[in-house]
Amino acid sequence: MQHYTAPLADMMFQLAAFDYEAVTKLEKYAAFDLETTKMFLEQTGALASDVLLKSNRAGDVEGAKWDPETGAVKTATGYLEGHRALAENGYYGLTADDAHGGTGAPVTVGTLVKEMLMASNKSLSMCPGLTGGLIEALEAYGTDAQKETYLPQLASGEWTGAMCLTAPHSGPGLGLLTTKAAPAADGDGFTLTGTKIWITFGEHDLADNIVHLVLARLPDAPPGIKGISTFIVPKKLADGTKNGIACTGLEHKMGIHGSPTCVMDLEDARGWLVGEPNRGMATMFVMMNAARLFVGVEGISLSDIAYQAALAFAKERRQSRSMNPEKREGGTDADAILVHPDVRRMLLDVKSTTEALRGLAIFIGTHIDLAAAHPDEEVRQESDDLVALMIPIVKAFGTDRGFSNVSQAMQLCGGMGFTVDGEIEQYLRDLRIAAIYEGTNHIQALDLVGRKLPMGGGRLYGAFAKKVAEAVKSARAQEATRDFGDQLAAAFEALTEATEGLRDRAAQDPEALGAGASTYLTFFGLVTCAYTLLVQANHAVAENTANRRAKLGVTRHYFARVLPEMHAHAAILAADHTPITQFDDADF
Amino acid sequence: MQHYTAPLADMMFQLAAFDYEAVTKLEKYAAFDLETTKMFLEQTGALASDVLLKSNRAGDVEGAKWDPETGAVKTATGYLEGHRALAENGYYGLTADDAHGGTGAPVTVGTLVKEMLMASNKSLSMCPGLTGGLIEALEAYGTDAQKETYLPQLASGEWTGAMCLTAPHSGPGLGLLTTKAAPAADGDGFTLTGTKIWITFGEHDLADNIVHLVLARLPDAPPGIKGISTFIVPKKLADGTKNGIACTGLEHKMGIHGSPTCVMDLEDARGWLVGEPNRGMATMFVMMNAARLFVGVEGISLSDIAYQAALAFAKERRQSRSMNPEKREGGTDADAILVHPDVRRMLLDVKSTTEALRGLAIFIGTHIDLAAAHPDEEVRQESDDLVALMIPIVKAFGTDRGFSNVSQAMQLCGGMGFTVDGEIEQYLRDLRIAAIYEGTNHIQALDLVGRKLPMGGGRLYGAFAKKVAEAVKSARAQEATRDFGDQLAAAFEALTEATEGLRDRAAQDPEALGAGASTYLTFFGLVTCAYTLLVQANHAVAENTANRRAKLGVTRHYFARVLPEMHAHAAILAADHTPITQFDDADF
Repeated sequence: MQHYTAPLADMMFQLAAFDYEAVTKLEKYAAFDLETTKMFLEQTGALASDVLLKSNRAGDVEGAKWDPETGAVKTATGYLEGHRALAENGYYGLTADDAHGGTGAPVTVGTLVKEMLMASNKSLSMCPGLTGGLIEALEAYGTDAQKETYLPQLASGEWTGAMCLTAPHSGPGLGLLTTKAAPAADGDGFTLTGTKIWITFGEHDLADNIVHLVLARLPDAPPGIKGISTFIVPKKLADGTKNGIACTGLEHKMGIHGSPTCVMDLEDARGWLVGEPNRGMATMFVMMNAARLFVGVEGISLSDIAYQAALAFAKERRQSRSMNPEKREGGTDADAILVHPDVRRMLLDVKSTTEALRGLAIFIGTHIDLAAAHPDEEVRQESDDLVALMIPIVKAFGTDRGFSNVSQAMQLCGGMGFTVDGEIEQYLRDLRIAAIYEGTNHIQALDLVGRKLPMGGGRLYGAFAKKVAEAVKSARAQEATRDFGDQLAAAFEALTEATEGLRDRAAQDPEALGAGASTYLTFFGLVTCAYTLLVQANHAVAENTANRRAKLGVTRHYFARVLPEMHAHAAILAADHTPITQFDDADF
Repeated sequence: MQHYTAPLADMMFQLAAFDYEAVTKLEKYAAFDLETTKMFLEQTGALASDVLLKSNRAGDVEGAKWDPETGAVKTATGYLEGHRALAENGYYGLTADDAHGGTGAPVTVGTLVKEMLMASNKSLSMCPGLTGGLIEALEAYGTDAQKETYLPQLASGEWTGAMCLTAPHSGPGLGLLTTKAAPAADGDGFTLTGTKIWITFGEHDLADNIVHLVLARLPDAPPGIKGISTFIVPKKLADGTKNGIACTGLEHKMGIHGSPTCVMDLEDARGWLVGEPNRGMATMFVMMNAARLFVGVEGISLSDIAYQAALAFAKERRQSRSMNPEKREGGTDADAILVHPDVRRMLLDVKSTTEALRGLAIFIGTHIDLAAAHPDEEVRQESDDLVALMIPIVKAFGTDRGFSNVSQAMQLCGGMGFTVDGEIEQYLRDLRIAAIYEGTNHIQALDLVGRKLPMGGGRLYGAFAKKVAEAVKSARAQEATRDFGDQLAAAFEALTEATEGLRDRAAQDPEALGAGASTYLTFFGLVTCAYTLLVQANHAVAENTANRRAKLGVTRHYFARVLPEMHAHAAILAADHTPITQFDDADF
């Protein structure tokens, strides 16, 4: 039986630590003041724990079912109820503009909401997630008519959105796209033909209509990604007739069974161009930051619910005696396993990285909001830089660490963790895909080292360095946090050295970049989490908050027993990379 | 569609590198000379690839089915055929004495056979695995009559074996055992009553009879593990009637669906004592080394088959261009992904650790065989020491690394890796349990630091130090391996420092041992794999073997890009452990 308690206290604490107030002061987000935000998060927590969680197991066990006769897809028991609760309470248009029926929440709030929804029902929550992405794309590039036609219906959840990107055999490479768009004979839009795979919620029975954003090539489009255009293709046309797009099968996956992953066939499907011809990548990029942030949040969310399950188990299960006689409980043969150092190590590894990553998500969220709506251009630019730098890290490090955290929680529960009734095994299966989709974690690493670091001559890294220096300074001003400040300063220095080393190596041999990128990102992730925990510790001490002792304890654990993992990455990056690139192909 | 090619060439190479010849020279194993061993391994490889693999998917999809009416368990399609092939070819009694119908193979051969069987069908191969454990226990502690009654039938696979250890709510702690044995009214043996859980192949439809080894308490037995006795309880009695032991349910698990994990109820079941009353732990310990070695081999086996799947994918799948213009293929838009450094990194991480761990399994296997049958007591003792030291490492590091290797292979395959038809996802689910059963990996770590290191004043560590020194010396005598020798010497020195540091810390605070044990074992595992790879590289260079270039390439990768991970563990062990032990319980 799955349980979930939304971590509301930590969320509110972290909003304060990461100066969410600066966001609430923006005119655009004035409606989401601290009090409103708190109420909204409480409501979300209740919805997650009471409604969404209820169908999470059913989604896994029943899966989504495809009818080969009609192409229809039936979702699991309880999904419709969950969908309706999400729709009626404004979660489909959560961060969408209220001008078109959106809830108008800051992305900061969006990250916390996403965490709760994903923790309680990852599969179902992917539906509003994708719809949110489509809304964002239309807000940025849709015509006024398109906005009026689609946005209110999408924001209300009456209709849902889907992203038709991947062509068979093309993997993440959009350049190999084969779907073709030709001007419609009657002059109204285009007709699209081709096949798309890996389409999440491409077909289902939850909503009246499904609006697809489809990548396709116009006639005579240039080859590669410079010849991609974006089209809107609704399942049902305005007159109520069926459009030429249909689900021709579902993938069978290790996890997220409740989320239908569709093969979609387009045959003379009517579609309308969104944005400029051949500029489809711009439309895609607009959704990318939020989408990748939210995938990173998936790692946080399942870490947290798995932690809760493991902690409950550790308090209940009895096994052996404490090595410390003073900690042995009287009147029993065996202590609760929470007393054993290795059990505590696992819990603290998971807890500290989860809270650090939650901080990172909030940090990015606030800067997305500031970049979008702050009156000062300099602030917007700096926030934008921080977001651009941190997106690959939260996505890749968040999902890698999230997966190992869930695996750690399973290990703590032993055989119980491996059984289906023990809940954690579903989280492990559901989460594994997050390191793969929305750009594999290595693609994130290449984005980091190949695009984000060189940008503006290292301007993004410089913006983060400034943030780190501020946190170090605050830490050194307080006795309780001084050591952490010194340690973060040293860790950041080592990261800078690795950054320069990788850059120099890549100048000699471009393949060095690919060989080191994933290791480098993990290194960066560890240092980033040290930073976000230190911001929290600083705040807890400065404000003497209720969780002061806990936050200092978690930070202490992270700095002593997790951050030192960076020495592995530093050493690997310092070593020769040619064993990888010069290994003979015949010897694999 | 799953494929498997048994890694016979590497196995034969490694047998030579680890001086398997010393085993074949022992009188006991004279029948398994090099030529016979080669033929036997070839036969096993064919059986694995042709017969066992065929029912591996069916086992996963159909699972084992329990009939609540009769308590019968039906295994998946093709399991009976696989079982018969194993039985007829001598795999049930593989390492059993030929005096009682066993095949009489050395344990060294057993590890390689186990690797192939597990790679092709982990669930089904657990059945001969458990039977082998039971045979070992009876060989050591059974009466002559028991040996005659049971051994030939078990060795032929006509009957199979099961281990009934765990009581509900007791976890790995055998002290909490509740099953009771009372002398039978008619004086023939005992009657046993109680419930056992997690009983692998406790009930099934493959064999005529199932022989259970059951842990239970005699009347007036002392409390705890000193009051445990071992009984043999057959499903069918000699007169053909049903004994009082029945399967009352199956666990639903994340993986190994084909292997029935049974709840067994004993109600006045007739059983016969094996070994001395209250000395059941001795019987259990006799099986432990081989059982834990073989679980470690599970990690190797699924690493290897997952590597094969990922490699095939990497050669076929095209995506992007090489960063090195010289490596770009002509006449295509995209290169095979094998060209990309990160893909190669993942493949080499998996390949190098898999070959290193295979070496470790062979190393342990040969020393088990030498310890069992060498005429010189000093050799026996030294071999025994090496085995005792290395068993927790191969079990824990082998399964941890095996799991991360399979996950790495999945990552390489992207979305294809996550789909059910992509085969790797089954390996991931099947392997996860190996870090939990047969003593969790932390229990292995405690065994290493709490028992094995202090034994004989550090004698076991000394035996390994001698082996390392030999390998370093050989490496330094050859130009091509010299650097590796220096690196292993440095790594071993760092390990020794960490060993002493942990010991000193634990002398101050016993809880430090538990806090550091798992990290320490991983450190030890990394250094051990450097050792086993260096032995291979030394041999490849000295003998100028056909795989010389490949082995040197793999070793180069491991020393440059994997072994440096140890710096993480060294740093964590050097840090304060009290953040773990002094964290306030209320703050979790």
